Amino acid sequence: MTVAFQSWASAHQQRFEEVLRHLLPQPDTVPQRLHQAMRYAVLDGGKRVRPLLAFAAGELVGADLARLNYAAAAVELIHAYSLVHDDMPCMDDDVLRRGKPTCHVQYDEATALLVGDSLQTLAFHLLTDSALSVRPAQQVEMVRLLAQASGSRGMAGGQAIDLASVGKQLSLPELEFMHIHKTGALIRAAILLGVQCAEPLAAAQLARLDHYGKCVGLAFQVVDDVLDAEADTATLGKTAGKDADNDKPTYVTLLGLQAAKTMAAELHDEALRSLAEFGERAQRLRELADFIVLRKF
Amino acid sequence: MTVAFQSWASAHQQRFEEVLRHLLPQPDTVPQRLHQAMRYAVLDGGKRVRPLLAFAAGELVGADLARLNYAAAAVELIHAYSLVHDDMPCMDDDVLRRGKPTCHVQYDEATALLVGDSLQTLAFHLLTDSALSVRPAQQVEMVRLLAQASGSRGMAGGQAIDLASVGKQLSLPELEFMHIHKTGALIRAAILLGVQCAEPLAAAQLARLDHYGKCVGLAFQVVDDVLDAEADTATLGKTAGKDADNDKPTYVTLLGLQAAKTMAAELHDEALRSLAEFGERAQRLRELADFIVLRKF
Repeated sequence: MTVAFQSWASAHQQRFEEVLRHLLPQPDTVPQRLHQAMRYAVLDGGKRVRPLLAFAAGELVGADLARLNYAAAAVELIHAYSLVHDDMPCMDDDVLRRGKPTCHVQYDEATALLVGDSLQTLAFHLLTDSALSVRPAQQVEMVRLLAQASGSRGMAGGQAIDLASVGKQLSLPELEFMHIHKTGALIRAAILLGVQCAEPLAAAQLARLDHYGKCVGLAFQVVDDVLDAEADTATLGKTAGKDADNDKPTYVTLLGLQAAKTMAAELHDEALRSLAEFGERAQRLRELADFIVLRKF
Repeated sequence: MTVAFQSWASAHQQRFEEVLRHLLPQPDTVPQRLHQAMRYAVLDGGKRVRPLLAFAAGELVGADLARLNYAAAAVELIHAYSLVHDDMPCMDDDVLRRGKPTCHVQYDEATALLVGDSLQTLAFHLLTDSALSVRPAQQVEMVRLLAQASGSRGMAGGQAIDLASVGKQLSLPELEFMHIHKTGALIRAAILLGVQCAEPLAAAQLARLDHYGKCVGLAFQVVDDVLDAEADTATLGKTAGKDADNDKPTYVTLLGLQAAKTMAAELHDEALRSLAEFGERAQRLRELADFIVLRKF
């Protein structure tokens, strides 16, 4: 991680926090409790990996920052809604998220359900903003990409497969199919939406950026599994990770720790190869691939 | 209800059922259980009031039927998603819907949560279909209208206010505010999306159709309250309706039965007045206003 990258990422993260504060419904707008809970679920949270990917892809193609803000926010709100719903008792039943009580714990289940629903709606609403309206056909394409990535044949479908996989032995292709949907689809969408904020890109270049997204999306999950396994192995008295305890198949349980690490490294290399033709302009995307694969948390 | 209207409505209802069967993910597409549950929640159900309003408004402005199908389906999927989530244990905890077990009873809560999430996404996805792509700016406007009507400042916000109102004494303006959001917004959107499927309409005409939608949307709820109160009064051993039993404020509990009926009749008249200038072309919308206000179930 170079200093230049860290400072770029940190500046975007701070600036983007203000963007979200502005785009979310204000806490004094009726119904206040719902709007306060929406802000609670989104603000002050996470590494904002998807927005950073959108900003980096957008910078590569020379996109306008005002437009990128809306695209990045739309993707992040879909991510945030999925976390709120996934944490609910009928799903993963988590009580902590990013060090804070989860939304249904802090508020209540009915509110958390409506928070997730409303964040999803707001994501699509943002893509209709006049900041993006100079190119309506591209706006429609952004809605299409985001819907495709997040619906039953994307993220929500991946979550359904994940729930159904508890206690089952998945094959490697089945595990990959699940993660390509559950995590990968939205990560790819972040990049493609960033690209859509500028002049239309040549199909071959778009395909290379999409392939980069596919590689880092999958790498993200493999690294998650590795970190989960290593963190818990290091914890006294526990020999397997949380996912293994929950009887969830992971890359580590399927491949073993070393092979999972090798897979992450190979996906990282392939992601970088997809960027070769873009030269210096793709530097931030390269660094984001490093960030995703080399992170320790 | 004229025979011509009944035959028009019935033909559209039957045809639209096939449209939905085609537009929903097929039951053998992975993840099958989620897709089967989505179809369970949407198909064979309801009077399709919102689609009929979209078709009638679309016919008034000469819109293409292929486009109207997508607009009507988008609105109906938002309605269907809201029913699935509203029925869940953390919300209204209903076990029956349209004579069938509710989605979370027939499947499970986690699946019902994902069904609602995925139906919402599919609604927005449908609006990006190439059937509508001849006018991308209008497509964007349709996404905007649907998002505005269904988000935290529309339908979902109305549901939040409804949940918060249990056991409270609302004033008439507060009750109206809740219903304008919870039910009214999506009914208005059905009409406006139907209109967006044709050449842009003059602002004054659009405002009149929107006012018609506002009137029938509110009338729909007032009539619901009247029917709920009368059905239960007629039931031996019960003197108040389900909503009153649940300690929910209604037009009947606030105004009394007779004044609520008068209010519905006045809204009906105002809806018809908004259509005066459209002459014969608005006949189906007039009959739909009759249908909504004069229905007995």
